[in-house]
Amino acid sequence: MESHDPGLQYGRTPEEPVNLIIQGGTAVTMVPGQQPIRNARVLIKKDRIMEIGPSSEIPFPKSSSMETIDAESAIIMPGLVNAHAHTAMTLFRGFADDLPLKEWLFEKIFPAEANFLSPETVYRGALLGCVEMIRSGTTCLADGYFFQDQTVRAVHASGLRGLLAQGIIDFPAPGVPDPKQNIHMGKDFLEKWHHFSHRITTGLFCHSPATCSKKTLRRSHEICREYDVPLQIHLSETEMEVAEILRAHGTRPAHYLDQLGLVDSHLIAAHGVHLDKSELKCLHEKDAGLVHVPESNMKLSSGIAPLEEITAMGLKTGLGTDGSASNNNLDLFGEMDTAAKLSKVLTRRPDATKAYQVLNMATLGGAAVLGLDKETGSLEKGKKADIIVVDLKSPHLCPMFDPVSALVYSAGGSDVKDVIVDGVSLMREKELWSLDQDEIMAAVREIAKKIR
Amino acid sequence: MESHDPGLQYGRTPEEPVNLIIQGGTAVTMVPGQQPIRNARVLIKKDRIMEIGPSSEIPFPKSSSMETIDAESAIIMPGLVNAHAHTAMTLFRGFADDLPLKEWLFEKIFPAEANFLSPETVYRGALLGCVEMIRSGTTCLADGYFFQDQTVRAVHASGLRGLLAQGIIDFPAPGVPDPKQNIHMGKDFLEKWHHFSHRITTGLFCHSPATCSKKTLRRSHEICREYDVPLQIHLSETEMEVAEILRAHGTRPAHYLDQLGLVDSHLIAAHGVHLDKSELKCLHEKDAGLVHVPESNMKLSSGIAPLEEITAMGLKTGLGTDGSASNNNLDLFGEMDTAAKLSKVLTRRPDATKAYQVLNMATLGGAAVLGLDKETGSLEKGKKADIIVVDLKSPHLCPMFDPVSALVYSAGGSDVKDVIVDGVSLMREKELWSLDQDEIMAAVREIAKKIR
Repeated sequence: MESHDPGLQYGRTPEEPVNLIIQGGTAVTMVPGQQPIRNARVLIKKDRIMEIGPSSEIPFPKSSSMETIDAESAIIMPGLVNAHAHTAMTLFRGFADDLPLKEWLFEKIFPAEANFLSPETVYRGALLGCVEMIRSGTTCLADGYFFQDQTVRAVHASGLRGLLAQGIIDFPAPGVPDPKQNIHMGKDFLEKWHHFSHRITTGLFCHSPATCSKKTLRRSHEICREYDVPLQIHLSETEMEVAEILRAHGTRPAHYLDQLGLVDSHLIAAHGVHLDKSELKCLHEKDAGLVHVPESNMKLSSGIAPLEEITAMGLKTGLGTDGSASNNNLDLFGEMDTAAKLSKVLTRRPDATKAYQVLNMATLGGAAVLGLDKETGSLEKGKKADIIVVDLKSPHLCPMFDPVSALVYSAGGSDVKDVIVDGVSLMREKELWSLDQDEIMAAVREIAKKIR
Repeated sequence: MESHDPGLQYGRTPEEPVNLIIQGGTAVTMVPGQQPIRNARVLIKKDRIMEIGPSSEIPFPKSSSMETIDAESAIIMPGLVNAHAHTAMTLFRGFADDLPLKEWLFEKIFPAEANFLSPETVYRGALLGCVEMIRSGTTCLADGYFFQDQTVRAVHASGLRGLLAQGIIDFPAPGVPDPKQNIHMGKDFLEKWHHFSHRITTGLFCHSPATCSKKTLRRSHEICREYDVPLQIHLSETEMEVAEILRAHGTRPAHYLDQLGLVDSHLIAAHGVHLDKSELKCLHEKDAGLVHVPESNMKLSSGIAPLEEITAMGLKTGLGTDGSASNNNLDLFGEMDTAAKLSKVLTRRPDATKAYQVLNMATLGGAAVLGLDKETGSLEKGKKADIIVVDLKSPHLCPMFDPVSALVYSAGGSDVKDVIVDGVSLMREKELWSLDQDEIMAAVREIAKKIR
């Protein structure tokens, strides 16, 4: 993770060439305190935003080499950040639903993973997940899974930005038959991909405090510190896990991780359904990140994380979909809507968790959790051009009194028409530019025939 | 509501002309106990389904006058039934969100309704709601609102099927400035539209047990019996309402309505968030219908209805979106997903409220609540041809292990490609045939400028 002030490098002088212009719509920049910009213009030079503001203040450049994206009747906004995904699990979308948790996991998902995950299938599944994410406006994802070389390949090919982490668990796992090798393989993964692409941050993903030993957790953390990369973990997803940690270690999961030295600004804890106030306080004080995963937590009946309390505390919070086996899609627009509504009904306060808060979680907040907020998550001069354009031509987005309300409560992923990552168009007018959707879907259908 | 055995009338003889054929996809018929039909063919004659089954068993007709809808890579299913809507409230979509309930209602929605509802605006708002419903696969709606002549006009023009009810409340209301006239105007409404169109059932909509007097409730019920039409009501949406009824009448809302004689097979109770077991039992024993409205109940933080308990009891249950001011869209696909997930997390049982159950609520169950299940809600020989085709070409619907799971947990309204109501195509390949979407949206945008 580079650290610099990109604004200094990217101040524009009048004669500088512009590669891409987005203009005409309302820009929801997600810059704290900034109001939506009506009739906005965004100038992009190579991979970065060179200018953003009202069209009246930013002249249309004279250079003839630039392309223009028409955002009239549209919202221009930062691409969404899916802060917790297992992208290749698109393979198991709808394979097992509505089952008791143990049956779902031990009789369906784990055996399917053991039997059908391979470098080839993970690559295909991850590509499908990337297609789905691009189509629904995600430009950056955090992923933890196995055969992660393949997810790196897929995300790289897709043009998306990603924090991609090798799974670590003290059981035999896909691609890691001998758990004694898990740390070793994690380190190999970091070594191999650490400098591969500026769009890809690497990391480790410890499955949970209950499925990784103290030693495994500590070693994973050490290695992440060594490479200066984030450590992802499932934390307090279920009450069962909390009980297990309490029984085994005499303290609750977040405190247990803290005792092991894992709670710091590089920790990304997903779920956090059953964290008590003292655990939330601990995460907050040490600047750890939390990822809210409401739909998966509902579908698996894990519980409802106290989102209003979490955000009121100021904890670094992102939003994630989890894998497609427990959601069953990767649409962060739906996830935002659910997050806000669920918090309102939990607190019995309709003014709890406002639209802007969940939009922030799905953009700048998620970027902060991933350690990427200096580069992405908002539309700001000098930041990476990770931008989506949301079409407002559909009836469910009419009328529009407030663009943020429209994005959170009315829009869906299918309203996204253009996606730009790192200044590169991945989708234009709903047509994918970086990936062959038909080929990818056909390949996954073939794999699914075997899984069935 | 006619009662006959349509199957007898619509048995096909080989030489009979067919008007429309849908073929190639998987038919999810919603006929109880019936498995999905792979490579299905549906023959439609005029307004009814003449044949449905595997293509291998239903020969392609020889007549040359028929049109064919290609449903390969698609699901053929009954159109969705939105069993609780205030369609014209699209006008107020996103106008007021994230506010305390009283502020939302008394400072925003009621004043906006008082100032901006007119025959003209209700007509435009209802048309927009119809466009949105058609696009997202709803073919039948239950609506209760004011200036209902205009909603009748709009629904009729749209080609949708509807149960449209005049609002009754003991306060000055849009179009009913003198509440003493509310019953009279309700009766006029029924008299005027009762025989207008076979696609439109009329009814009355009492706002709630707390906002209508005993006399108003009783008279509304009498008139509904006289015309043999359903009576809709908001029932136990909030705890406040329950407390108010308890205080005023010494019993809980459903029992209060029962004492007044309102609880019968023609009663349609929406929300039902805070009904206790004895109230649910009362509704069930008297064959009243309940409409689950989860997203609105979440957004307004009213609470979570005990759906698993309700369906386990066998209560006639439908699914509704409520108005766009408290949702903020009319997409029943999203509503199904939320209904299932919310029930799972409420009960802490991931096997509670399965995908098929919510799909049933959104189709045949909703039709039963509206008293229209003999005519619509499932794909069956002799029933009305109210059919939608859901495209499976999008990445979030790949792979597909189970069509019902795909519809509930992965699909969205934007996946619907064809909509047929009463044998008439309202949308073909995502192009609207019955309404001019651009004109309707432009008109609502003009109205919204004034509301703002």
